[in-house]
Amino acid sequence: MGKTRWNRVNSAGAGKIRSDDFSRCSTETLTPGSDARGIVAVAARDLQHAGEFAKKHNIPRAYGSYDELAQDPDIDVVYIGTIHPHHLSTGKLFMKSKKNVVIEKPLAMNSREVRELITAAQDNSVFLMEAIWTRFFPVSLEVRRLLGQGEVGDVQMVRADLGAPLTHISRLAARELGGGALLDLGIYCLQFVLMVFNGERPESIQATGHCIDTGVDGTAVLVLRFSGNRLAVCTCSITMMMTCDAVITGTKGTIKVPHHMWCPTTLEVNGKEMQFPLPEAGMPLNFTNSTGLRYEAEEVRHCLLKGLKESPWMPWAHSSLLAEVIDEARRQLGVTYDQDNIQ
Amino acid sequence: MGKTRWNRVNSAGAGKIRSDDFSRCSTETLTPGSDARGIVAVAARDLQHAGEFAKKHNIPRAYGSYDELAQDPDIDVVYIGTIHPHHLSTGKLFMKSKKNVVIEKPLAMNSREVRELITAAQDNSVFLMEAIWTRFFPVSLEVRRLLGQGEVGDVQMVRADLGAPLTHISRLAARELGGGALLDLGIYCLQFVLMVFNGERPESIQATGHCIDTGVDGTAVLVLRFSGNRLAVCTCSITMMMTCDAVITGTKGTIKVPHHMWCPTTLEVNGKEMQFPLPEAGMPLNFTNSTGLRYEAEEVRHCLLKGLKESPWMPWAHSSLLAEVIDEARRQLGVTYDQDNIQ
Repeated sequence: MGKTRWNRVNSAGAGKIRSDDFSRCSTETLTPGSDARGIVAVAARDLQHAGEFAKKHNIPRAYGSYDELAQDPDIDVVYIGTIHPHHLSTGKLFMKSKKNVVIEKPLAMNSREVRELITAAQDNSVFLMEAIWTRFFPVSLEVRRLLGQGEVGDVQMVRADLGAPLTHISRLAARELGGGALLDLGIYCLQFVLMVFNGERPESIQATGHCIDTGVDGTAVLVLRFSGNRLAVCTCSITMMMTCDAVITGTKGTIKVPHHMWCPTTLEVNGKEMQFPLPEAGMPLNFTNSTGLRYEAEEVRHCLLKGLKESPWMPWAHSSLLAEVIDEARRQLGVTYDQDNIQ
Repeated sequence: MGKTRWNRVNSAGAGKIRSDDFSRCSTETLTPGSDARGIVAVAARDLQHAGEFAKKHNIPRAYGSYDELAQDPDIDVVYIGTIHPHHLSTGKLFMKSKKNVVIEKPLAMNSREVRELITAAQDNSVFLMEAIWTRFFPVSLEVRRLLGQGEVGDVQMVRADLGAPLTHISRLAARELGGGALLDLGIYCLQFVLMVFNGERPESIQATGHCIDTGVDGTAVLVLRFSGNRLAVCTCSITMMMTCDAVITGTKGTIKVPHHMWCPTTLEVNGKEMQFPLPEAGMPLNFTNSTGLRYEAEEVRHCLLKGLKESPWMPWAHSSLLAEVIDEARRQLGVTYDQDNIQ
């Protein structure tokens, strides 16, 4: 594959969403002279919205439907930033048209949907990745390097917390929009745990928490037990501010990812702080440390250039396991989505 | 009660134990001209050991048995620093002789024993307190003041971690000596939680962890749910290093007790750090921040001067509930002591 042409799918009516930052950052990644052309088209359910988005980000083509975008032959990969409940249908639509896809986390509403997406990627022989951008930050690379080197000995425990009062955001609170702490924030904690434990399946999962009025999880505490007496404690919340940090305890020391564990720029290894500054933003961005989205864009580009169907750092097996752990936690907390009732 | 005369009970054969520091700090508390006479006697199961301890700490009288000390009429309060399994019998012995007692934490091996001690205190009309020294540190007073004032709004969550690799210490690892993470370290986390939640009984307790070869809990993660969707997460370990801090999350802010949560000198209120330096040590001490034992000694003195039978800041109800929570956690983890089988 010679050229990697970034493309975008954006849901209509969305304002300050990740897609906006992603467009800016992924475009900025692709410096003049590189073999990538950046974002060549955007689609939304509303042509006017797509047109405005395209104009704002200097994207050549705008479509008023995902189908039109799916038919565009001049596209290598589609970034899907719709709301969670649309990930499955939109993902399948593009993969059916032999488009590679990067889908915002959570990959889908539950593990059944995740399996369906993976099957679609296999059937159509396309690239599929859950957009867990954290995994591609230099801090995450350094964490993997340190663990691989045995810098803190054998890992004994991981703790990860993420939360903020966010129930005023309808997408996060509404059950029909895929709201809830686990799907939106808990997934950051759990992906960190699964990264540290190399995608190993936990032996047991204990979830405690509470639901908000809409029926989704407001706060969830998950205690996972892994083989060899290793433990993980994840706390996520859309009702309260958490410390938003992560700690790996090993037999020989401790690795801490301080506040901003979901988009980290600092690491503390046995108390010694290391800084990993992000690229500077060329344009104003909506979210904290959004320039870090470039690392994710670069990873996708490298995978496509190598002809890979999944990222070695965010493989399908991790997405499946993430969804299975969240399914089980939701079962214990009594959180169900309509998608859970489809066989 | 005109004079408060401190007294000591020390178990024979013990070297670097808390009793040593307690003797130094409680004596230093009692400045010349105060109405307290300090430590007037020490007892151990071995007269030679008691004599050495007495000499080291300038204690006038040494006894080779607890019975002799219990018969000494010139004593107001006995500090019991024996190993956990002896707390019940030693406590009852002194209370029967109408002596007030301060017993090292955990007050006893399980909630049945705690109830027995409380009944003994009631029957003999004496003062009884579990020596949770943390509660009397200026940091703890400030936490209670801030919570009372609603400084961080309504409390939503408490997290407390305490742990270090300590299984090489037989007292901490051996089942027959009352070993295990919960009884020795978890109690610090749980007492913090119960302090914040004013001794309220949790609605549910979920314990996950693992046992070491001796059958006691090496690491335990407890998730407690309180009324009004409030949560607490406590992690304790004698097999691994933990962050040893505590965080209270409220609707309006956060209170953090950084490392040394069991003997704290620092507080972070909404990110702003406050220092609470301890009195300087007049003599070398065995444990971190041991001069803080003075606050506990002062509390006991004030309680006795007021004729109280329990400390308002470490009441019997809290000791009972602490023991009940630990009993339940041990039940879930499969940790039993011989004392659990006595009806």
